[in-house]
Amino acid sequence: MAAEIAEQPESLARLLSQTEDIVEAVARIKAYGPRTVLLAARGTSNNAALYLKYLLEISLGLPVGLVSPSTFTVYGTRPDLTGVLWIAVSQSGGSADLHEPTAIARECGALTVAVTNNPGSPLAQVAEVGIDVVAGPELAVAATKTYTSQLLALWLLVEHWRGGNGSAAAELPELAAKVLDVGGIEEATQRYRFASSLLTTARGYSYPTAREAALKLMETSYVTAQTFSGADLMHGPLAVIDPQMPVIAIVSEGSGGQAMTPSLERLAERGADITLFGDASAVPGATTIIPLPDAPLEELAPILEIMPLQLLAHRLSIIRHLNPDEPRGLAKVTSTR
Amino acid sequence: MAAEIAEQPESLARLLSQTEDIVEAVARIKAYGPRTVLLAARGTSNNAALYLKYLLEISLGLPVGLVSPSTFTVYGTRPDLTGVLWIAVSQSGGSADLHEPTAIARECGALTVAVTNNPGSPLAQVAEVGIDVVAGPELAVAATKTYTSQLLALWLLVEHWRGGNGSAAAELPELAAKVLDVGGIEEATQRYRFASSLLTTARGYSYPTAREAALKLMETSYVTAQTFSGADLMHGPLAVIDPQMPVIAIVSEGSGGQAMTPSLERLAERGADITLFGDASAVPGATTIIPLPDAPLEELAPILEIMPLQLLAHRLSIIRHLNPDEPRGLAKVTSTR
Repeated sequence: MAAEIAEQPESLARLLSQTEDIVEAVARIKAYGPRTVLLAARGTSNNAALYLKYLLEISLGLPVGLVSPSTFTVYGTRPDLTGVLWIAVSQSGGSADLHEPTAIARECGALTVAVTNNPGSPLAQVAEVGIDVVAGPELAVAATKTYTSQLLALWLLVEHWRGGNGSAAAELPELAAKVLDVGGIEEATQRYRFASSLLTTARGYSYPTAREAALKLMETSYVTAQTFSGADLMHGPLAVIDPQMPVIAIVSEGSGGQAMTPSLERLAERGADITLFGDASAVPGATTIIPLPDAPLEELAPILEIMPLQLLAHRLSIIRHLNPDEPRGLAKVTSTR
Repeated sequence: MAAEIAEQPESLARLLSQTEDIVEAVARIKAYGPRTVLLAARGTSNNAALYLKYLLEISLGLPVGLVSPSTFTVYGTRPDLTGVLWIAVSQSGGSADLHEPTAIARECGALTVAVTNNPGSPLAQVAEVGIDVVAGPELAVAATKTYTSQLLALWLLVEHWRGGNGSAAAELPELAAKVLDVGGIEEATQRYRFASSLLTTARGYSYPTAREAALKLMETSYVTAQTFSGADLMHGPLAVIDPQMPVIAIVSEGSGGQAMTPSLERLAERGADITLFGDASAVPGATTIIPLPDAPLEELAPILEIMPLQLLAHRLSIIRHLNPDEPRGLAKVTSTR
């Protein structure tokens, strides 16, 4: 896992130099002219899909839904998906609860796209259009480099779709190297040594980061980590917050980060212990700040800001005498329907 | 809160006798002929919206998305929503992060429907079509009777839309009275007296129940309660499960409940302590079973199965010497954007 986290500047650079799949996919999608987009994914890839949902809604103004695979596999739905773009995102491309619904979606009229790290996988084969995120083999059960490569591939897809050339992403490999070298992770990790639960929060583009950080912490360190958007937190879950509940807030520069201000104020009023990753300037009440370099665009911040949280999850697992490479109870390819 | 939980047989009966709004809404929706449905909600109402998502996908085969209000309020998106049906669900109808996006959706071409317990609210006024769930005034901060009335209103909407007459719901008030009288709640509550975290799980129609149960437990008893669908659990979060983590599984009779079997088996292998609410026949490895009467249809089970979990959340708050009627940090109408 440590090696794969460290490889991210390289895996992002590789993808930036191999965008043929993406350019071809965009041509197919534009020719198709979708009215609606459905996204299918599980686990880490579902957080990447959620990032894509924000991008598509905000940047292209399309209605987007995240699919519940069970509607296809458990309840046997066969909807009319004419004019629907179906994008399935999966690291392995191996879980039946993605390739079965994708096959059904194709039969039901959707244009199907598979974004995987394995072009020979059942999912990639069943979809009409394939995008390989070229992250290289990922051996650790907890996905890290495939996640950031998925995010970048999905950003490039939207960027080319809206007519851009992707140049804003050129600095990402260099920025990734800087982010992986950020200070303060060891201190934050030591401070969470005995935390049994933890809450992560963010808004907008960074909300998927908050979810992915929670998932990494659960997978590697067995901490019960919950995520709420800064807004959803106010609708109920705020009640669980007291000074004993560690909060990790991801606040990137831009509109999403600014919209976190009222949530951070309410958390501070409740005495929450907040570690903030991101924009050090916009912070009422944070206990600890881990400043991150600004991304070239707010949209691109999620590709960078997850990295220190991957490092935190990995390190917390190590100091708890667990094995981050082999989380208990999990396999690399998950079989669900 | 106790009084409002107890009122549910009556509030459901009231809605069953006042379906004019729903019949009229269906006529408007059918005349409009939506290509896609977007749902907007927060908190408890978002769990009701998720239930509607399953119903629309499975029963009507429509593509459905849950809206991230921030794409409208924070990022200022103005998408082309021609042919889109927009349904906003809110108890109070008072939060700006619903009525602002609903107003924008209407301007952008969507047919807008507001499902509220307050026909005079800003949300109800801004939408073209209103459905009043007629649950009567709800004073407790933790929503209970408005949730089940929302579910029933949404079921009736889909039922009339697909040409049904709603008769399958006729027994619900009587069944609700039975469910509210189910045994075993006191014992389960005592057993969770000192639990600091808890996990809820289900699949399909019952997945919103699992989420709503977790929200009630957080709001009233400050337990950190997480929810995963039985399938998502396998993609990472299973690692946090050990015999110290209480699991509440909602397993109703039908396809969704049957699809829980592999998840329950994996949980049992990990030594999880499982309290199962629902179908007593389909249960590998549950520690405690709270059998619930079968619903007339699997689709209708969520309206009933949340009730014992509301009772559990309320009772747990009482035995922890908290005040379930006034959760710390929360107001009845939440203001977020």
